[in-house]
Amino acid sequence: MKALVLERKGDLAIRDIDLPREVGPGHVKIAIHTVGVCGSDVHYYTHGAIGSFVVRDPMVLGHEAAGTVIEVGSQVKNLKIGDRVCMEPGVPDMQSRASKLGIYNVDPDVRFWATPPVHGVLTAEVVHPAAFTYKLPENVSFAEGAMIEPFAVGMQAATRGRITPGDVAVVIGCGPIGIMTAIAALAGGCSRAIIADLSAPKLAIAGQYAGVTPVNITEIALKDVVMDATGGWGADIVFEASGSPRAYEGIFDLMRPGGALVLVGLPIEPVTFDVPASIFKEARIETVFRYANNFDRALNLIASGKVDLKPLITDTYSFSESIAAFERAAKGLAEDVKLQIRLAD
Amino acid sequence: MKALVLERKGDLAIRDIDLPREVGPGHVKIAIHTVGVCGSDVHYYTHGAIGSFVVRDPMVLGHEAAGTVIEVGSQVKNLKIGDRVCMEPGVPDMQSRASKLGIYNVDPDVRFWATPPVHGVLTAEVVHPAAFTYKLPENVSFAEGAMIEPFAVGMQAATRGRITPGDVAVVIGCGPIGIMTAIAALAGGCSRAIIADLSAPKLAIAGQYAGVTPVNITEIALKDVVMDATGGWGADIVFEASGSPRAYEGIFDLMRPGGALVLVGLPIEPVTFDVPASIFKEARIETVFRYANNFDRALNLIASGKVDLKPLITDTYSFSESIAAFERAAKGLAEDVKLQIRLAD
Amino acid sequence: MKALVLERKGDLAIRDIDLPREVGPGHVKIAIHTVGVCGSDVHYYTHGAIGSFVVRDPMVLGHEAAGTVIEVGSQVKNLKIGDRVCMEPGVPDMQSRASKLGIYNVDPDVRFWATPPVHGVLTAEVVHPAAFTYKLPENVSFAEGAMIEPFAVGMQAATRGRITPGDVAVVIGCGPIGIMTAIAALAGGCSRAIIADLSAPKLAIAGQYAGVTPVNITEIALKDVVMDATGGWGADIVFEASGSPRAYEGIFDLMRPGGALVLVGLPIEPVTFDVPASIFKEARIETVFRYANNFDRALNLIASGKVDLKPLITDTYSFSESIAAFERAAKGLAEDVKLQIRLAD
Amino acid sequence: MKALVLERKGDLAIRDIDLPREVGPGHVKIAIHTVGVCGSDVHYYTHGAIGSFVVRDPMVLGHEAAGTVIEVGSQVKNLKIGDRVCMEPGVPDMQSRASKLGIYNVDPDVRFWATPPVHGVLTAEVVHPAAFTYKLPENVSFAEGAMIEPFAVGMQAATRGRITPGDVAVVIGCGPIGIMTAIAALAGGCSRAIIADLSAPKLAIAGQYAGVTPVNITEIALKDVVMDATGGWGADIVFEASGSPRAYEGIFDLMRPGGALVLVGLPIEPVTFDVPASIFKEARIETVFRYANNFDRALNLIASGKVDLKPLITDTYSFSESIAAFERAAKGLAEDVKLQIRLAD
Repeated sequence: MKALVLERKGDLAIRDIDLPREVGPGHVKIAIHTVGVCGSDVHYYTHGAIGSFVVRDPMVLGHEAAGTVIEVGSQVKNLKIGDRVCMEPGVPDMQSRASKLGIYNVDPDVRFWATPPVHGVLTAEVVHPAAFTYKLPENVSFAEGAMIEPFAVGMQAATRGRITPGDVAVVIGCGPIGIMTAIAALAGGCSRAIIADLSAPKLAIAGQYAGVTPVNITEIALKDVVMDATGGWGADIVFEASGSPRAYEGIFDLMRPGGALVLVGLPIEPVTFDVPASIFKEARIETVFRYANNFDRALNLIASGKVDLKPLITDTYSFSESIAAFERAAKGLAEDVKLQIRLAD
Repeated sequence: MKALVLERKGDLAIRDIDLPREVGPGHVKIAIHTVGVCGSDVHYYTHGAIGSFVVRDPMVLGHEAAGTVIEVGSQVKNLKIGDRVCMEPGVPDMQSRASKLGIYNVDPDVRFWATPPVHGVLTAEVVHPAAFTYKLPENVSFAEGAMIEPFAVGMQAATRGRITPGDVAVVIGCGPIGIMTAIAALAGGCSRAIIADLSAPKLAIAGQYAGVTPVNITEIALKDVVMDATGGWGADIVFEASGSPRAYEGIFDLMRPGGALVLVGLPIEPVTFDVPASIFKEARIETVFRYANNFDRALNLIASGKVDLKPLITDTYSFSESIAAFERAAKGLAEDVKLQIRLAD
Repeated sequence: MKALVLERKGDLAIRDIDLPREVGPGHVKIAIHTVGVCGSDVHYYTHGAIGSFVVRDPMVLGHEAAGTVIEVGSQVKNLKIGDRVCMEPGVPDMQSRASKLGIYNVDPDVRFWATPPVHGVLTAEVVHPAAFTYKLPENVSFAEGAMIEPFAVGMQAATRGRITPGDVAVVIGCGPIGIMTAIAALAGGCSRAIIADLSAPKLAIAGQYAGVTPVNITEIALKDVVMDATGGWGADIVFEASGSPRAYEGIFDLMRPGGALVLVGLPIEPVTFDVPASIFKEARIETVFRYANNFDRALNLIASGKVDLKPLITDTYSFSESIAAFERAAKGLAEDVKLQIRLAD
Repeated sequence: MKALVLERKGDLAIRDIDLPREVGPGHVKIAIHTVGVCGSDVHYYTHGAIGSFVVRDPMVLGHEAAGTVIEVGSQVKNLKIGDRVCMEPGVPDMQSRASKLGIYNVDPDVRFWATPPVHGVLTAEVVHPAAFTYKLPENVSFAEGAMIEPFAVGMQAATRGRITPGDVAVVIGCGPIGIMTAIAALAGGCSRAIIADLSAPKLAIAGQYAGVTPVNITEIALKDVVMDATGGWGADIVFEASGSPRAYEGIFDLMRPGGALVLVGLPIEPVTFDVPASIFKEARIETVFRYANNFDRALNLIASGKVDLKPLITDTYSFSESIAAFERAAKGLAEDVKLQIRLAD
């Protein structure tokens, strides 16, 4: 089966590769239609590793995917052949202690697409557990279906933030995850989301959404905007989605007494944390690791029209152009939010 | 000072009456601009009592109000003369045990406008604690300001429901509170609200809102709609906003395993409750008594454009026509959501 | 294999019966040591059914069990041969929507021991998923291990009650589940548990525990005791563990403003519920269906000495006397909390 | 009135000083009986300041107090002359936005005893709001009453930790606050508390309590103890009560997936925080600023016998010896948990 294979750091090829094809009793086989290019895919391409996950053998990339069910296992009840679907790329051991608690995302044995040594899905067909395969509502396209995975990170942030209806949110960082977080926070009950970044083009994209206030921190202090917007009280929830250690400077000054900080961004350098400032505000701090139990909720929000992710799909490539898509993604253009690769018509 | 006085059951008069005028250090004086007519005002007019609250002396009606600050007490910091405001009509003892816990709405000593023996605000000027007086954002009108009080009940329902972003809600009852609850549930994170009633005109009003699915239960079974919308899983949250004992029949059948039921409506007859059905679903049941800590959040949602209450204001009367407004409200027309009385220009 | 078989309503036999013996990759085989007699076992014996669960074919009884691992499946990591264990008797489909959420107890497809048509464990050997088999700490006996299952119901009640440290609890009903709930509530953070019943012998058993205040409601009004104990404020949490519809009369009068009611008991007749009373207190109501994710926590509490269930084991029978044990249990003596049957030495 | 006055850094005097004596309508006057010596009192004595709070004028020390009501204001309902009481030393503006939310401890305008410029209570008589004065149960002594204030910090930690019954806790730091936190965590639902420190005498004091496992980290790695105690899964809740930046090294390794970290200790140097480690565990992090709404709960736990703080009172001084008490406290002996000063018989 043809796939987009990362042979080693910096070396991509479209070529045949042997992939698992057996459909177990709880599995479905899916003809892949659309796959989004994620920052982590690109990072494996450009660096060959993310932390302790090192690409040692050729690996198929891609984990943001939608497609059509073409075969169902004997015990599958929730899906049938022909269903249009999207897939949750992490497969936990559902018998594990974490999974029993409902936090299967932190099961240490989770196997995640396009994370060494597990292959991704930039290929024609994939076998996946039906339990982690979600039917697309009629009015949700394959392209939108392939956006559910990154949006689910924003949904997890909004969920763990435990929004009280009408909360004012701040989002630090206007990359794809920051924008997704702002959209999820608004859909999830916030009255407004003040999003901060250094990049004017990124802020312009976020600013298209109703309820989003873009703040260019090269021009104005974020704290001033937040305090002005909240009558000096502070934001109810601050989402850190930049992964920059500098974002932590004065971060508790943005927050109201008793507010929440949600850590979404993954800094690679050590972070200096102002513990006394967090204590004086009696802050609650939540962290976000991927997502659990929210693909269905994300689909509900898109189907009902509350969330529109289409403006975030910057460009679409055919499968044969997929190396070009990765080369463009590797440039990290400020105007690019999401590039997608289309494998079927 | 002229006021709309309920002399006794069935007897309204616009006449002079002595009202408290002293502005304490933490108080403001407000020139009333707009007052909404609430079902409880009307009930005192038509029945002379609500439960154990009996009108024994002439009482000014009205508790859904907005106006302009015309005097501020010596210790008031959050408001100044000229501020456009709306007011929370219940004044608790802030030193009470309930208030210290943040649940001042259930302080047994709360004094609530237009609840015997406390006067309401259908009059030119009112003195109120600044702590329960909220500045209207620039883009929120007096008419909208006077809608905050009933909307706050819906906000309390949405808050106590502890919505997870993307939840599917059912609202039983399409009166003013049911509609407010549906709007708050959507603004507060639900992906959609399926609202059920017997009255086609009421459902038509609710159906104007994006995300609301009106269900006429004289035509179709609510359970069928809910199960169809959720793939047989059930709603995440059911809001009971009808106050009808019949609403409780089969109510847990509408709910997913582990779902929530939020009781907003106040039934006057005894309710038969299917405890085993609630237990087999391991349901969580929340109740709503007025509201606490959400006028500011409600204003945020209106100011940001996420919530639009203007379509619910059916008609507006001048103060001199206010008896006519009550007579119309007493008819309970299906097409009428909210009648307002305007005391200033 | 010999087992205690309920042939039909009222007819028990110790006889050979074919039972599943195959140890799958995630399974363990356990030599049963001790099994407690539960009210539901007795009810199948005396009535032949519980609600819609009807005994149509001979069924082995027993679901409160501890024993020793004698065989482990190929993929089992958490257990080894010789481990002393107790077992969670409900086996859900871990791929289900409820299980993914961590509420596997409300998975509609759960298979539960000694619930038709599933056999129980009053037999020498049982095969069970390792994920629902829990190692007993060294200082926890088999007899205590077989008490975990009923105690887990009390643990679920304490968990869903969301106790704030120092809360005052009321428990209505002093049967085995009421006592277990009181013990769990105290271990789970309550400062005291006021337990109410009509039966002096039952109350005497509960009263042995530090922190438990027994109240005989034939002698004194429960509300008076609660209000006296709380300075007129009311209890933070009320656990309904009697299953009696009469317990619901005035139940919200026992509760502080903003308190919680936890429904554990399963009434068989309809219950009249005072919705306005619940709303005026803005009560939170939780329900308890069996348990999830707390066998390990229950074992922690017993191992650390915070919980001692041994005083609740009234008598122990050998397997050959097990019909006598059921006959005694069927009498429902007030002095009997838990009878156990011992299958091994 | 005679008081223990901190004239300036390092200079204590027992002398007459003018203090507020007027009893307002919501106030009580209390004859002080016992006052505990707190680390913050000592720090003002030895350093003249804590952060931005600088002693510029003579200030009475002491904020952990119990006594007897000798006068009540006209509107006081919860107390009468002769009541034995303890007092919450922070008085918020109950009309503030934080207070309305129930988080009056983070009201920026809170006035706190013995925090410049507010006088403390090492004096014969004190006037205080009745709302923040708590009646001691009959079986709670004045000495125990004066322990409620420091214990309330531990209670706040246990409360904000949102313990699930049976949780395993780790407490880092075995000073007075660490011990109080361990005791509160156990009373609040934990099955055991593993407490870590470098000081053998401190650990010996904590180790007297049932459920506490002292760990001397000069002898054994804390992580090894925790993993051994939890079968390799990790602790449910980690309380950081040392205030040492080094405590943050590897702190998330102590925690189970989805666990909680509660920050109680106030580090004075910057802390390096391992954000990726917190995210990979999807940790929840809570902070503790003093306490709110738990003096009554703490008293319940002591009255019921679940909590015994008497072993923590190392020594008691008369008022005339109070400078000696401070000199001893300033030495910070490992054997000293709490020194108290007695002002009455």
